[in-house]
Amino acid sequence: MPVGTQGTVKAVSPRELRELQAQIILGNTYHLFVRPGLDVIRKLGGLHKFMGWDGPILTDSGGFQVFSLAKLRRITEEGAHFQNHLDGSPCFIGPETSMEIQHTLGSDIVMAFDECPPHPCTHEQAARSLDLTLRWEQRSIDWWAGRNDAGQRPLLFGIVQGSSYADLREKSARALVEMGWDGYAVGGVSVGEPEPEMMAAVEYAVPHLPEDRPRYAMGLGTPPQMVEMVARGIDMFDCVLPTRVARNGTAFTAAGTLNMKNACYTLDEGPIEEGCDCYACANFSRAYLRHLVKAEEILGLRLITLHNLHFYLGLMARVRAELEAGTFADFRRKFVGGYKAHRESV
Amino acid sequence: MPVGTQGTVKAVSPRELRELQAQIILGNTYHLFVRPGLDVIRKLGGLHKFMGWDGPILTDSGGFQVFSLAKLRRITEEGAHFQNHLDGSPCFIGPETSMEIQHTLGSDIVMAFDECPPHPCTHEQAARSLDLTLRWEQRSIDWWAGRNDAGQRPLLFGIVQGSSYADLREKSARALVEMGWDGYAVGGVSVGEPEPEMMAAVEYAVPHLPEDRPRYAMGLGTPPQMVEMVARGIDMFDCVLPTRVARNGTAFTAAGTLNMKNACYTLDEGPIEEGCDCYACANFSRAYLRHLVKAEEILGLRLITLHNLHFYLGLMARVRAELEAGTFADFRRKFVGGYKAHRESV
Repeated sequence: MPVGTQGTVKAVSPRELRELQAQIILGNTYHLFVRPGLDVIRKLGGLHKFMGWDGPILTDSGGFQVFSLAKLRRITEEGAHFQNHLDGSPCFIGPETSMEIQHTLGSDIVMAFDECPPHPCTHEQAARSLDLTLRWEQRSIDWWAGRNDAGQRPLLFGIVQGSSYADLREKSARALVEMGWDGYAVGGVSVGEPEPEMMAAVEYAVPHLPEDRPRYAMGLGTPPQMVEMVARGIDMFDCVLPTRVARNGTAFTAAGTLNMKNACYTLDEGPIEEGCDCYACANFSRAYLRHLVKAEEILGLRLITLHNLHFYLGLMARVRAELEAGTFADFRRKFVGGYKAHRESV
Repeated sequence: MPVGTQGTVKAVSPRELRELQAQIILGNTYHLFVRPGLDVIRKLGGLHKFMGWDGPILTDSGGFQVFSLAKLRRITEEGAHFQNHLDGSPCFIGPETSMEIQHTLGSDIVMAFDECPPHPCTHEQAARSLDLTLRWEQRSIDWWAGRNDAGQRPLLFGIVQGSSYADLREKSARALVEMGWDGYAVGGVSVGEPEPEMMAAVEYAVPHLPEDRPRYAMGLGTPPQMVEMVARGIDMFDCVLPTRVARNGTAFTAAGTLNMKNACYTLDEGPIEEGCDCYACANFSRAYLRHLVKAEEILGLRLITLHNLHFYLGLMARVRAELEAGTFADFRRKFVGGYKAHRESV
């Protein structure tokens, strides 16, 4: 899922998203709640109509951003009190408000409201946080059950927490399955922990999640990380990397990342990646892209963003094809091996 | 002509330029000479191929930018010595170097190398500057006459100078016609002088320029200024306004400019301009554009840029149609009258 934090996938138009064959995008509840605010999005007919995107939208619950962006948080049983990061005005989001916001946005996949504990945290902290999260998740699902239009409700995804502790991840997963969600996410990953710990957190959770429901690793990752996560049973990802690093001139290829500012591309007539059929690679040289990035021209980051999204979406399409053909194990080995040399440059 | 200073019309892709039905764009010789430099553009097969634009390109001579951007200028009979504005390294552009650069770029319409006197300047200063410019323009045209491939040369346009003095503008125009250019530009306008003085400079020159050759007012202007210039016999314009002001959230309409940051658009479901069929107006509300501009999202300035270019190109298409229908005088009166109310906001 390309990430459209503030009601737009950064630097990309809805027409371009369609052409990239994006199946679904992510919107950030916290950001949209703070700006433009719900009154605007309600008046304009919901997030789809507001941003001109008629495909599916998954919205996060706002929990993660409250914990990573907002100031002066105070967590109570009720929810999270905070000052928003734009003008410092006092706000509150609890499970019910999060569901109400996502309902107003018109989300197709709604995420449960959870607390994302910091990394590192002790077993005791993680256990206490998980218990609160489970109560919040129950209240999230109950909000929808109590509505008259429950039959037309969006898909609801629960979020596994439990930090880096196997017993807590298992407890979280089992409790969520008991509640009965449409899909299951693994949260509290990619929050600064080493990669093996991130993989372990997923490995602790996945065996306890039903195979016939989508499994979603939140906020990931590099191309090899995604392939490795698929090998562990993950179906869905969202990640800001392809759009974020493009704005700094970094392009993804199967061999690793390229920094398009690099002087070695000054006279390079080739495309970002040989064989790529994205708009950038079909029409422009590395030399031109380097010039645009050096000259701080918006077209440069636009073209690299298109390439990177094409690369990410193409990688997942390839992964699906390899899985269906029964050749995924071989693909995984070759792809992860071939990418590793440049891995550290992201 | 949309302006593509550094090898891209800012924030716009070549595909979008085609869809906007841009017939020709402008490239800036000085900027491209300084970055990426001629070695890069030569190696990449010329400016058209470098930037992926297969339509016509007009390049300026670099003269105006040497006088407006570069540091430590020293003007001699030979040309202009200066330090470039990026790294301060010493550069030289004279008439022959300007022609050679434009030849390397692969320009379709080449502008003569001229000196652009400051505003205001005395009659004596303006006269001395004009004499130098006329010698430089003769050397510009001679450079092409001396080549073996003279039969395949691009179109060459001379530039009328003479500041705000009627006798000098007339002298300049007559001397250029004597040299025999493919087209004639009026330069040294829109350099800080009041609008009546700008109109007068054009009025002094145009009667002395042949009717069967294109007449081009350089670096203009607002929508009513362009319509007024057409009424005075001008055929061609280049202007950074539609792209530049878009990046600050300003949109053009037939009634004047709109500042999309304005709070009055917060809940406005309408398009920038009713009846406009550009991509921005066909798909997005003022409320969404305001949100994007406030949130500093690149898509916001992209969409306003597309609208503004569509507006400028559409205005000129309309002007051509009105001229052909013999109804231009009526159109001019209504358009300029209807626009004036908001004029000061650009």
